[in-house]
Amino acid sequence: MVQKIFERKTESDVSPGMMIIVPVDLVYVQDGTGPLSFRQFEKLEKKSLAFPENTAIFLDHAAPSPRKELSNDHIYLRTMASKLGCKLYDIGDGVCHQIAIESLVRPFDIVVGADSHTCTGGALGAFATGMGSTDIAVSMGLGKNWFRIPESILIKLTGKMPKYITGKDIIISIVKHFGSNGASYQALEFSGDVENIPIHDRLTISNMAIECGAKVGIFPSDEVTREFLEKNNRFEDFKELNPDLDAEYIDRLEFKLEEIEPMVSVPHYVHTARRAKNLKDIKINQVFLGSCTNGRLEDLRMAAKLLRGKKVAKGVRLIVVPASRKVYLDALKEGIIEILVDAGASIMAPGCGPCVGVHEGILGDNEVALATSNRNFHGRMGNPDSYIYLSSPLTAAASAITGYITDPREFDI
Amino acid sequence: MVQKIFERKTESDVSPGMMIIVPVDLVYVQDGTGPLSFRQFEKLEKKSLAFPENTAIFLDHAAPSPRKELSNDHIYLRTMASKLGCKLYDIGDGVCHQIAIESLVRPFDIVVGADSHTCTGGALGAFATGMGSTDIAVSMGLGKNWFRIPESILIKLTGKMPKYITGKDIIISIVKHFGSNGASYQALEFSGDVENIPIHDRLTISNMAIECGAKVGIFPSDEVTREFLEKNNRFEDFKELNPDLDAEYIDRLEFKLEEIEPMVSVPHYVHTARRAKNLKDIKINQVFLGSCTNGRLEDLRMAAKLLRGKKVAKGVRLIVVPASRKVYLDALKEGIIEILVDAGASIMAPGCGPCVGVHEGILGDNEVALATSNRNFHGRMGNPDSYIYLSSPLTAAASAITGYITDPREFDI
Repeated sequence: MVQKIFERKTESDVSPGMMIIVPVDLVYVQDGTGPLSFRQFEKLEKKSLAFPENTAIFLDHAAPSPRKELSNDHIYLRTMASKLGCKLYDIGDGVCHQIAIESLVRPFDIVVGADSHTCTGGALGAFATGMGSTDIAVSMGLGKNWFRIPESILIKLTGKMPKYITGKDIIISIVKHFGSNGASYQALEFSGDVENIPIHDRLTISNMAIECGAKVGIFPSDEVTREFLEKNNRFEDFKELNPDLDAEYIDRLEFKLEEIEPMVSVPHYVHTARRAKNLKDIKINQVFLGSCTNGRLEDLRMAAKLLRGKKVAKGVRLIVVPASRKVYLDALKEGIIEILVDAGASIMAPGCGPCVGVHEGILGDNEVALATSNRNFHGRMGNPDSYIYLSSPLTAAASAITGYITDPREFDI
Repeated sequence: MVQKIFERKTESDVSPGMMIIVPVDLVYVQDGTGPLSFRQFEKLEKKSLAFPENTAIFLDHAAPSPRKELSNDHIYLRTMASKLGCKLYDIGDGVCHQIAIESLVRPFDIVVGADSHTCTGGALGAFATGMGSTDIAVSMGLGKNWFRIPESILIKLTGKMPKYITGKDIIISIVKHFGSNGASYQALEFSGDVENIPIHDRLTISNMAIECGAKVGIFPSDEVTREFLEKNNRFEDFKELNPDLDAEYIDRLEFKLEEIEPMVSVPHYVHTARRAKNLKDIKINQVFLGSCTNGRLEDLRMAAKLLRGKKVAKGVRLIVVPASRKVYLDALKEGIIEILVDAGASIMAPGCGPCVGVHEGILGDNEVALATSNRNFHGRMGNPDSYIYLSSPLTAAASAITGYITDPREFDI
């Protein structure tokens, strides 16, 4: 699938390992990396962006800002957006990757972002990948960049997804298999019975492809993709993408969906993962439901199903951050927000929330968080003397109720 | 009214200037002052609080925490609450003063809080006032403290409140009259046609009594008060409080409600106030709707009336922080939150929000905010190189729509 995308762009054959320069369809930055990228861009001494309409700035990491230095970065980025005519999504609009998949990323696109989880777009059949700020500056200035065509690893997901099992449990299982760099500079291509995997689960899976080092985690663009795009009023954007039957892979793996269990990454790595049911002694202080990994409507909905009419355990804070304004509005209309607030949640404005340790729930010393985000690295949530576990929204909701890491299968939904 | 409250406690006559020791009915701290208070309390070497059931800790200023030092303060306060058996309201529950008036403060109560805006409780006919952390520690340990009976200033509010005029416009007009310390150590006693002033406006007025130096701004406890208490399922808490006809005052003022106009405090003092209609050239970057002054259901509702179906001006951030979980839930049920999010607002979890410059909307250099909170002191919102104007929720909503300070009478409601 990755080769097909590059071949469509170059109108010639490509093969893994080739270095090529191709135009990019979308380039974006967030408020952490944006100032670096735009300062590099200014050094290029170009008066304009190659494609202002395909360049986007997202203010999501410090939304709203907790420090004046970050507020001044926001001023700089707003000034750049207005001067250069690119898209600007201000605080409260949501996480870059979520808005990108709602509105911007299309199958067959080549998407680069100054954020490692740009690979989320792979769920829509795009080649979407993170780059450093300087490379992003070049992409903004020239409208193209160099790529090394990655080798592809076939990951067959077979069977049906059992109740209680989510995309998060699948991708944690995959990352556990590979380790943190087992797929470095390669593409994960998901195949098998993917028609059984809803788009929100695909997005979570693609989002965390980087956690085993992959450049991208790509899904076919199929009827599930078409339905998602049409739901977002994007009737023109669909294009089918499938692997050829004779496609070559450097590795082939199969994950049987029926065998996946609720999984939890334990400190301080994503790949150090265990079954939720084996962690029931872990007492938690904070649960974070949100992020580009698991802050979508379906994620909030499944958590609300468990939390409806219940209360968060004494001593546990539940922080919920919808991934975008659209997610928030949809969740409001469905009554999901009310259920969560009633259960004791603190709902924050759309954005990255506490995921990156900027604000909105920095842990205290020796505190333990269970988060639905994508990284539990040492100090990630702003305090090196704390412990982060990662799970699905279902496991997070179940654990918020009990106060300990809890297999969600203990609850009826 | 203040003398009556103290006389009921002491069962003897009191007069202004007297120093007396009386029991307090409620003592509370927030997460900024709480650590100081409890460390002082520990120095008293008392094993227990005098009245744990009448002592409350509120985590509202850093809710949720943006820095690990503040998170550690939270841990300390939670530990104290659990060790000493006092009430704890954790992040997401709301601003101390709002929860206090919803659930704790009663007419005739003597209430002390380690926060200057404790005087909010005066709206319910309580003697409610802020104290330093050490005095609060003593109040927690002994269950009583010394007070100097303040002189009273009679403020007659006469006539009816015109449409578009709110408690905020009234209190800004009063503070403009007195200056920042014109009523120092005195009590403002509101009288006249107060039956025309709804409870949410009274709360805003009492909240800002401290802005002209007053110890308390007290309203009679009347049918309006009873209705509020009963709405909050507090059927036992009502007690009538009225000034005697022959009460003595050191000063008497009259404010004709019909003559009040939409008012705005301009940087960097509350008393440097001007009419909103004379400030239409002031371009704003951020609007903050919330705080213990104006984060109640009625405040959000009036802002939503103006913002329904409209969008916040380009280049303006609208940050909304409901004052309590109850306010948030009620606003959800009424569809107010949806209207605000749809208009472009960022809704944060209940708490103090950006009011005190801790997080959730620190201003950038040279930025201008219009806030519904109570103080626009130099640097208050976290950046000394910024400018804060204060107004009612209606003026704030009108200004969010235009991008400039705007008299709300320009809009139909």
